Amino acid sequence: MGLTLGLWQGEGVPGDMPATVGAISGIARDAARRGADLLVFPEGYLTGYHLPGLAPGDLDGVEDALAEIGRIAAQTGLCIVMGTHLETDDGLRNAAVVVDRTGAELGRYHKRALYGAWEKATFRAGDAALRFACGDLSVGVAICYDVEFPEIIRAEARAGVDLVVVPTALMAPHDRVARLMVPVRAMENQVFLGYCNRTGHEGGLDFVGLSSIRGPEGEALVEAGAGPELLLARLDRSRRAETRAAFCYLDDLAGLRLR
Amino acid sequence: MGLTLGLWQGEGVPGDMPATVGAISGIARDAARRGADLLVFPEGYLTGYHLPGLAPGDLDGVEDALAEIGRIAAQTGLCIVMGTHLETDDGLRNAAVVVDRTGAELGRYHKRALYGAWEKATFRAGDAALRFACGDLSVGVAICYDVEFPEIIRAEARAGVDLVVVPTALMAPHDRVARLMVPVRAMENQVFLGYCNRTGHEGGLDFVGLSSIRGPEGEALVEAGAGPELLLARLDRSRRAETRAAFCYLDDLAGLRLR
Repeated sequence: MGLTLGLWQGEGVPGDMPATVGAISGIARDAARRGADLLVFPEGYLTGYHLPGLAPGDLDGVEDALAEIGRIAAQTGLCIVMGTHLETDDGLRNAAVVVDRTGAELGRYHKRALYGAWEKATFRAGDAALRFACGDLSVGVAICYDVEFPEIIRAEARAGVDLVVVPTALMAPHDRVARLMVPVRAMENQVFLGYCNRTGHEGGLDFVGLSSIRGPEGEALVEAGAGPELLLARLDRSRRAETRAAFCYLDDLAGLRLR
Repeated sequence: MGLTLGLWQGEGVPGDMPATVGAISGIARDAARRGADLLVFPEGYLTGYHLPGLAPGDLDGVEDALAEIGRIAAQTGLCIVMGTHLETDDGLRNAAVVVDRTGAELGRYHKRALYGAWEKATFRAGDAALRFACGDLSVGVAICYDVEFPEIIRAEARAGVDLVVVPTALMAPHDRVARLMVPVRAMENQVFLGYCNRTGHEGGLDFVGLSSIRGPEGEALVEAGAGPELLLARLDRSRRAETRAAFCYLDDLAGLRLR
């Protein structure tokens, strides 16, 4: 059965959430027409990522925009993973909201590994995974710096996840994360991975693109350059089983005597 | 202070341990002349790596050869890490033996992650790390498939190791390990790493070379092609501190709420 994963590498319309939602609608229609089942947007796509001075009360339009994204999901028949900052009762969150193809919200993932002084001062870190089914694949979520910790992606694999989707906002000079770490996280866990980055600039940050969809040997099924682009790849669970027939890292890990 | 790390990428003389020891003596003299402090040899260098049918009693010359390597270390003033199969009271081991620059043996590391059917049928897996000081660096040891498990190298970093040395026997088509995983293990732990592979062929195995010495961002300080080669790089602990000034994975890991 499998699924077709789409990643939208791009940026929203700065400071104009209705315009960003309008763009999302067009991107979703295009992705659906091209066969996508699951469509992922980058970190902070709905709100912008780097918002110095962001404070509680500044994110009032987000819930209405998310309701609209639920309608877009229902109209296009896509499951959507949307990167957005959120306000919760516990504080601001750097989040990814998942809606299914009926528009129902499946959950909200809160980034666990906050990066750098601004994120740490602004957001409250998450403490829980979010996993959902899409087609016959189990999907896990991580955001940006999360993927740089092998422990976080290992936990997804050990929980039986087939695919990890990673909204991100990777800036220069850290392209080594996209080029090296991302394939290795797929490879060492023998899972699919979709790494979905921003483009363009915010303040002094230059986002590097380099989004990719990885197979379970870390191989690029498709990868982007620096500019806006819709990436699509068909993922079949049997490919994971083939990879693990030769050797299986999780099985061998279970046999290790570590101390 | 730091140290100069040398990796000998090559193969021994098949079935002729005295000739292999003679070659080691020449390589060690060359490495010492070129400034090495620590010299690493590949997995199974002394005995050969892939020895189908290997059984207890077959490795009788190894202890005498290791005594000779201690003398070579003392003569050249090098600390040496020698990949060799060993017989112990508990069974055969895929090992790395460390001798210091006085020729004193510092310890024997037994490979923990045994790879594939032959290794699992032949060797008993190790269950302990081996760490030693060389200059002002703390050095850890892993062998081949060990490095493919982020848990094993993470444990070295958390124990304060500055450099992990990895005798290996990486064969085609697994060059992705050398090209991707090896730099990522250095990068995600912000440590130095020396990955020291065999060359040539054994049975149906084609070793790929591609040894490298990595800095704490995963960058290649020096890397080899497919043929025999002595790699040398100067490692300075202050380089690790520079890398961690911007962000420190271990510090951020300690703050994660994982479950």
